[in-house]
Amino acid sequence: MLRFPVATRYSDYDAKGHVNNAVYFSYFESARVSALAEHFIRTMDMRDAVDPPIIVAEARIKYVSPARIGEPLEIEISVAEIRTKGFSFHYRIVDARDDRLVAEGETVQVAYDYEAKRPMPIPPSMRAGLEAM
Amino acid sequence: MLRFPVATRYSDYDAKGHVNNAVYFSYFESARVSALAEHFIRTMDMRDAVDPPIIVAEARIKYVSPARIGEPLEIEISVAEIRTKGFSFHYRIVDARDDRLVAEGETVQVAYDYEAKRPMPIPPSMRAGLEAM
Amino acid sequence: MLRFPVATRYSDYDAKGHVNNAVYFSYFESARVSALAEHFIRTMDMRDAVDPPIIVAEARIKYVSPARIGEPLEIEISVAEIRTKGFSFHYRIVDARDDRLVAEGETVQVAYDYEAKRPMPIPPSMRAGLEAM
Amino acid sequence: MLRFPVATRYSDYDAKGHVNNAVYFSYFESARVSALAEHFIRTMDMRDAVDPPIIVAEARIKYVSPARIGEPLEIEISVAEIRTKGFSFHYRIVDARDDRLVAEGETVQVAYDYEAKRPMPIPPSMRAGLEAM
Repeated sequence: MLRFPVATRYSDYDAKGHVNNAVYFSYFESARVSALAEHFIRTMDMRDAVDPPIIVAEARIKYVSPARIGEPLEIEISVAEIRTKGFSFHYRIVDARDDRLVAEGETVQVAYDYEAKRPMPIPPSMRAGLEAM
Repeated sequence: MLRFPVATRYSDYDAKGHVNNAVYFSYFESARVSALAEHFIRTMDMRDAVDPPIIVAEARIKYVSPARIGEPLEIEISVAEIRTKGFSFHYRIVDARDDRLVAEGETVQVAYDYEAKRPMPIPPSMRAGLEAM
Repeated sequence: MLRFPVATRYSDYDAKGHVNNAVYFSYFESARVSALAEHFIRTMDMRDAVDPPIIVAEARIKYVSPARIGEPLEIEISVAEIRTKGFSFHYRIVDARDDRLVAEGETVQVAYDYEAKRPMPIPPSMRAGLEAM
Repeated sequence: MLRFPVATRYSDYDAKGHVNNAVYFSYFESARVSALAEHFIRTMDMRDAVDPPIIVAEARIKYVSPARIGEPLEIEISVAEIRTKGFSFHYRIVDARDDRLVAEGETVQVAYDYEAKRPMPIPPSMRAGLEAM
């Protein structure tokens, strides 16, 4: 499990003063990119770390409590499942001050060969990174 | 079921030239707002139509095929389920030229009394609008 | 001069219920893309119309009055100046109901040869399109 | 002058792999909010630091060189001018590795009394914060 601060932006907040529903998926994405870039850097080659050979196939979220302007947020990302061609991440977004749960969700990724344009088995280096996460 | 064109923006597309994962939830949101504003206008009062007394509690999506720059998109929104305090919308985003499925998903909404700050039964006028949709 | 409706999104509005400052530049961009795609289609080849060989070099805006949720907006785009390698667009965003001015601005574009990776003179077909706009 | 890292997001990059034009204004906004929140906290009361009594009246930018995926960015913000009712910030966005200039711009702010709904002289505490920045 990894935990990162969320760099919220003023424009993330909607007219109710809450983080907009769609923006949480950008937070998930940032955590995913950070996890792949910072943590897997030892096992994957550099280019794959920045632009990994995966496709996001599914995403889901439960909004538990609103995040208001000025509240510091953190996001936890962990590997929920690893299969042959895909894997899933679980996310928890919390208030950094008291761990109040704001939202939690999941994304399913498929390893994808962008040159052959088709799914592929998870490369061993990526699998090692996921298992160590 | 209602169907709207999707007003895509150049900034919706990511470095792969595909609509970014998180942006689809903005498309869902726009369809939801249009459905409530344009369709329910007869049964709900004007203020509720623009800023309806609901909270989005859950959202999920399956990404079926990428949407590329220049491809015209349309979104279908329909009511999937109506319960006492909540209801769910189903969405399908398609290529407007051949109905190729790009993504489909669902959001769960809860009727919410913003003054009392708690969930409430779906108001009769909103229920009528949902049933007619 | 061309005039388009602005397809606002709920997430465009910030915690004050106004369109966020940065979002106006996305409205400028959409108007620019629409102008190039719909209007110049006769004089430019199709690929250039969707992804024109230009770089935006400068942008500026004056915020005149706030745009609130529910207010219908329209945007006017016109050619302000054409030089050898560059040209500028002028934009006016107005309330569609009474033409109240919300914001006005300008962007400067440079014709750019993406293969040679350097600015180039404006292609004749693009110049013709700009002069007819 | 203050300098902050820019927390870029994957969705900030457009189909050319460059930070989208409009997104730079969100970077300006984040720097502005950080400057007001972190730096002026001594002289302004807490509420004003989070949601300061100002309106952005103008903004402009020059795009000098593109920012590509994986390039770490930093932003400098400084006070360019202080007048009776308004002041302007100057911004420089650079590659954190070699200070290559990516973009520079300016925003003009007006002190605004949100209750009286009109511009006001810059409050002394805010003026002190600006002069010390």
